[in-house]
Amino acid sequence: MALLFLSSAERAAIWAPLFEAAGEEMILGEAAVTDPAAVTHILCWQPPQDLLRYPNLKAVISTGAGVDHMPALPEGVSLVRTLAPGIEEMVRDWVVMATLMLHRDMPAYIAQQRAAAWTVRPVALARGTRVGIMGLGRIGQLAAKSLTGLGFDVAGWSRSARPVAGIEVFGAAALEAFLGRSDILICLLPLTAETRGLMDARFFAMLPHGARLVQAGRGAQLDMEALRHALDTGQLASAMLDVTEPEPLPADHWAWSDPRLVITPHVAAQTDAVEGARHALNVLRASREGAELPGLVDVSRGY
Amino acid sequence: MALLFLSSAERAAIWAPLFEAAGEEMILGEAAVTDPAAVTHILCWQPPQDLLRYPNLKAVISTGAGVDHMPALPEGVSLVRTLAPGIEEMVRDWVVMATLMLHRDMPAYIAQQRAAAWTVRPVALARGTRVGIMGLGRIGQLAAKSLTGLGFDVAGWSRSARPVAGIEVFGAAALEAFLGRSDILICLLPLTAETRGLMDARFFAMLPHGARLVQAGRGAQLDMEALRHALDTGQLASAMLDVTEPEPLPADHWAWSDPRLVITPHVAAQTDAVEGARHALNVLRASREGAELPGLVDVSRGY
Ligand SMILES: NC(=O)c1ccc[n+]([C@@H]2O[C@H](COP(=O)([O-])OP(=O)(O)OC[C@H]3O[C@@H](n4cnc5c(N)ncnc54)[C@H](OP(=O)(O)O)[C@@H]3O)[C@@H](O)[C@H]2O)c1
Ligand SMILES: NC(=O)c1ccc[n+]([C@@H]2O[C@H](COP(=O)([O-])OP(=O)(O)OC[C@H]3O[C@@H](n4cnc5c(N)ncnc54)[C@H](OP(=O)(O)O)[C@@H]3O)[C@@H](O)[C@H]2O)c1
Repeated sequence: MALLFLSSAERAAIWAPLFEAAGEEMILGEAAVTDPAAVTHILCWQPPQDLLRYPNLKAVISTGAGVDHMPALPEGVSLVRTLAPGIEEMVRDWVVMATLMLHRDMPAYIAQQRAAAWTVRPVALARGTRVGIMGLGRIGQLAAKSLTGLGFDVAGWSRSARPVAGIEVFGAAALEAFLGRSDILICLLPLTAETRGLMDARFFAMLPHGARLVQAGRGAQLDMEALRHALDTGQLASAMLDVTEPEPLPADHWAWSDPRLVITPHVAAQTDAVEGARHALNVLRASREGAELPGLVDVSRGY
Repeated sequence: MALLFLSSAERAAIWAPLFEAAGEEMILGEAAVTDPAAVTHILCWQPPQDLLRYPNLKAVISTGAGVDHMPALPEGVSLVRTLAPGIEEMVRDWVVMATLMLHRDMPAYIAQQRAAAWTVRPVALARGTRVGIMGLGRIGQLAAKSLTGLGFDVAGWSRSARPVAGIEVFGAAALEAFLGRSDILICLLPLTAETRGLMDARFFAMLPHGARLVQAGRGAQLDMEALRHALDTGQLASAMLDVTEPEPLPADHWAWSDPRLVITPHVAAQTDAVEGARHALNVLRASREGAELPGLVDVSRGY
């Protein structure tokens, strides 16, 4: 049993001693593979083309929480996402920040600062402001808890409509009712066949007029032209984007200079190397014990 | 017993029916005063010059949470600050937002967006980041609770060093130790003789190099030239200011265009008229019953 490590050298320097301490084998890069049959796990953002080279491969572990960038894997090879409390907390923090920034009119205040204008705008209470979270997974639930704590009136939307303590949950079929009560809409969905292109003109029309959008899912879920039109008609008042399509956003893209948008370059989270290594070690242990792999992706659902 | 109301007409329109429902008298403006002896309370941002005109005046109620703008009052006249959960929550929300914005490098990302630059910077966990809150009153305690909930390692500083659940509290004499552990410093102090000019060059030198500053107290607590120098030497990495000296900040002030600063025009909170009226009615009731006035200011301390 060995993990083939296909990520950065800085990260490898942190992983190697942890693997050694745990008595697990880690191979640094494909060139270092002497016996392909020994490779049982691969850690990577994207796997090498020729996975059939590794006859005993059990699982591919994505270095991130999302797996939408992954190709189809050979039969019998599991796909695993990284589980790291650090990632989840970082995205939660970015989402709480972005929600407050839109709620407190920061796009307008940033523009006013550029114009050296001291202009007071009405201040709204978080208490009673309706927030809708799309995606109530590990991150969505953390965000719901923090935003509820600040007094926001939070509801959520998920495929299964599985109950989440303290908030109202809408199922997939109740999208219209859910959007109709989302003054601030947060996207924390994985990118799948169902969520690709989800946020389009028809979708924005279901929001209250003047709603705000926090996008921390994946760029391809959002139709950028529909976003622009919704901002121009006032249907959306403002938005904060950590993910875009494409990434990086080209320097001449209209979104950069739109004063109603705040854009960050996909930095809601970065995987902490120590947490990533710990998770990979847990996956190896589960493989050995025949237990369910932590972070196992249901490929048919796409997440 | 009557309250002389010296604030805006919009606010008066909300207060009047609440006073009527409570059976309390409210006089709109000095011109409407027919019997000065009937005036027992005045609601105002700044009181009229000639307070001696009202021989039975018991208390002046400030429309805001701060009272640093108030002149000395005649003997026997109490000074009361507004107590409104809404104000406290609004300031807490602004402070949580500002802390996250500095923690997550938003000043740099705002500048990058202006330059259409997709440049990823390292992401830090809130967990373990040391936050110091100066002023552990009604607002400081709320902020401590929310920031602790996000995983920040919070400590506080107050005159009395009165314990606050869940955080380490430093007393007035332990300022140096407190500042030495404040990667992000939050000011939620009232403006008093002791806190005027508190944040100067000597003060900034006690912070860890590269610290960040969230200023939600009062402008006169911060020496703007010392701030500029601390930013230039890197002693401070960035700051977010809701209050400045003077206010409004003049259009030609250097601070507007400094990319390490984010400035909002004293909008951390606005008093909700309904909550303000409820508090004033509580003050009238306490006066009548001879109980301690809610929000009574200790004039010798200055807050
Ligand atoms: N910007 C960044 O840096 C960054 C970093 C990390 C993650 N992310 C994004 O955040 C996403 C969520 O992460 P997570 O760890 O919270 O994922 P997760 O635990 O897998 O949760 C996914 C949630 O989305 C719901 N969902 C999926 N497809 C849906 C559909 N078609 N309709 C309605 N709901 C649907 C799921 O519903 P059920 O509960 O019914 O299964 C679940 O609640 C990631 O996939 C990624 O896109 C972004
Ligand atoms: N930006 C805005 O829009 C906005 C809105 C509202 C309020 N504010 C600011 O926030 C301030 C705090 O409001 P609050 O309601 O929380 O006030 P508060 O309940 O009166 O609490 C004041 C706190 O400051 C501490 N303190 C006072 N002088 C001190 C000194 N010299 N050294 C150390 N600690 C000192 C007090 O210590 P003790 O606990 O020992 O008494 C107390 O913890 C207001 O005074 C105002 O300046 C700003």
